[in-house]
Amino acid sequence: MHRPALPPLPPTPAGSPHSTPRDSKVFAPGSVCLVGAGPGDPDLLTLRAVQRLGEADVLLYDHLLDPQILRLAPPQASRICVGKRASRHTLPQADINQLLIDFARNGQRVVRLKGGDPLLFGRGGEEMLALAAAGIPCEVVPGISAALGAAAALGLPLTHRDHAQGCSLVTGHRRQGESALDWTQHSTPEQTLVVYMGLGEAAHIASQLLAHGRDPATPVAIVERACSTAQRCVCGQLATLAQLIADQQIASPALLIIGSVVTLHQQLQALRQQAVIS
Amino acid sequence: MHRPALPPLPPTPAGSPHSTPRDSKVFAPGSVCLVGAGPGDPDLLTLRAVQRLGEADVLLYDHLLDPQILRLAPPQASRICVGKRASRHTLPQADINQLLIDFARNGQRVVRLKGGDPLLFGRGGEEMLALAAAGIPCEVVPGISAALGAAAALGLPLTHRDHAQGCSLVTGHRRQGESALDWTQHSTPEQTLVVYMGLGEAAHIASQLLAHGRDPATPVAIVERACSTAQRCVCGQLATLAQLIADQQIASPALLIIGSVVTLHQQLQALRQQAVIS
Repeated sequence: MHRPALPPLPPTPAGSPHSTPRDSKVFAPGSVCLVGAGPGDPDLLTLRAVQRLGEADVLLYDHLLDPQILRLAPPQASRICVGKRASRHTLPQADINQLLIDFARNGQRVVRLKGGDPLLFGRGGEEMLALAAAGIPCEVVPGISAALGAAAALGLPLTHRDHAQGCSLVTGHRRQGESALDWTQHSTPEQTLVVYMGLGEAAHIASQLLAHGRDPATPVAIVERACSTAQRCVCGQLATLAQLIADQQIASPALLIIGSVVTLHQQLQALRQQAVIS
Repeated sequence: MHRPALPPLPPTPAGSPHSTPRDSKVFAPGSVCLVGAGPGDPDLLTLRAVQRLGEADVLLYDHLLDPQILRLAPPQASRICVGKRASRHTLPQADINQLLIDFARNGQRVVRLKGGDPLLFGRGGEEMLALAAAGIPCEVVPGISAALGAAAALGLPLTHRDHAQGCSLVTGHRRQGESALDWTQHSTPEQTLVVYMGLGEAAHIASQLLAHGRDPATPVAIVERACSTAQRCVCGQLATLAQLIADQQIASPALLIIGSVVTLHQQLQALRQQAVIS
C-alpha cells in the first residue's frame, strides 16, 4: 500500500502558494495541502479539495471521514489515519506534524484531510506553522464547517435580521488545564451560539448561560451527525437541554445551536408539513 | 435570453429535500435551490453547487459574483442580477422572493446564487421561509463563507488553542432603525472577531471594543477582496484600525479579523520569508 518515495525535487519557493490564491493551481511534490473535507457529505467538498485529493501521494486523515471521500485519492496513494475522535487522539499532534514534514521532505505531495474546515477548531493552524518552521510549502483549502452544513441541511438560518445579527462558533470540548470559556460573552440573544462537540459539556454550558442571564426558554437545536444520512435534529429549550440529550440518547458527533433562529427551522418544518397535507 | 417556460410538472413533496440531505440528488422542476457561491474563487464552489448550477433553468444572482461561476449554468438558462451591493439593493427583498416563487410556479428549476453561504448574512433564511409559505420546495447548498475563505488564503487560523477558543462572525453593516450590536459581548480576547462589511463602521467598532475593555494593541487584519486575485491583507492594531483603512485606501468588500490569531499569520509570513532567504 505504501508508495515508493519519489526522488526529492527542488522545493517550490515557500510562501508563494498563499500570496496569490487564484494562481495556486500546482500541487508541487514536497509540499503539503491542508484540505477541509466539509461536514461529511462528499458532495459538499470543494472543487479544489477534490483536485488536491486526486493529486495526493500520501493522505493523512482523521476518523469519521466518509470512505467515499478517501477514495478520491489515487488508488496507489498511502492512506494513514492519524486521529482524532473527541478527546482520543490516535497520534499526538507533534507526531502528526512530524509525519507531514517527513513525507514532504521525501518529495511527496501530502494531503492532510480534516473534517469541516482546517482553520476552525481543526488545529490546522498548528500544522501550518510547524510546516512553515520546517520550510515546507503549505496550502490550505477551506471546507464547509459543520455549523454551515447543518444549517443548510436543516433549513436553519444562523443569522436573520429579526433574530440574530451574528453567530458565535465555540467548542464545548475542554482539554485538561484549559481555561473555561467566558460565558458572559454569550449572554446576548442577538448572537446565535453554535457549540461544536458540546454534548459532554451541555449541562455545564446551559447552566452557565442561564446564570449569565439567557432566557430559560431560549430555543435550542441538537444536531446529531449533521449532513450524514443519519442526521437527526431535536429541538427544545435551553433550560432542559441536558435532559433532552439524555432522553433522546443523542450521541457524538453533535452540534448545539442556541438562539431564536431555531424557531425559524420549526416554522419552516410546520409550513412544509402544511404543504404536504393541503 | 429568456428560456421558454417549461410545462408545469407535479410538484415534489415539500419538505423532502431537507430531511435526508444525502438523498437529495434530484433538482425537480418547480423548485428552488439556494446555492452558496463561496468567497469568490470558482474552485471553492462545492460539487453540489456546480451540479445545481448546471441544472438551472433560471439563475438569480448577486453582484460581485465571478463571471466564471455564472457560466456554469447552461447557456440557455436565464440570468438575472437581483442585487445586492452593501446597502444598495437592486431589487427589494420581497420582489426577489416573488420572482423565485413565480419562476418555480412556472415549472422551472430556479437557482438563487448568493456570495458566501446562503444562511449566514445572506438573507437566505427569508427567501427559504417565503418559499415554504408558498409551498415551493427549496434546497440549500452551503458555501464557504468569506471568513473561512480568507483564513485559508492568508494562512490565518480563526481558532488556535493558545489564542482563541472560538470565533464570532458579525456584520458591521447596519440598516436604518436596526439596533446596534452589543459590543460588551465582544470584549473577550478568547474569541476571534470577524466583521463582515465592517469598513464603513470600523471607527465605531474599534471605539466600542476599546470602550468595553479590549486592548488597544489587539492585532487586526483587514482583508480586501478575500480569495480574489486582487486579495490584499493589511495588519495593524485595534487602536489605529480606522486610520489604517484610510491610509491604505482599503475598499469594499473587506473583512476585519480582530484578535491575537492575527499574529499567527504574521509569524507564518515571517517564517516563509526566512525560508525564501535561507
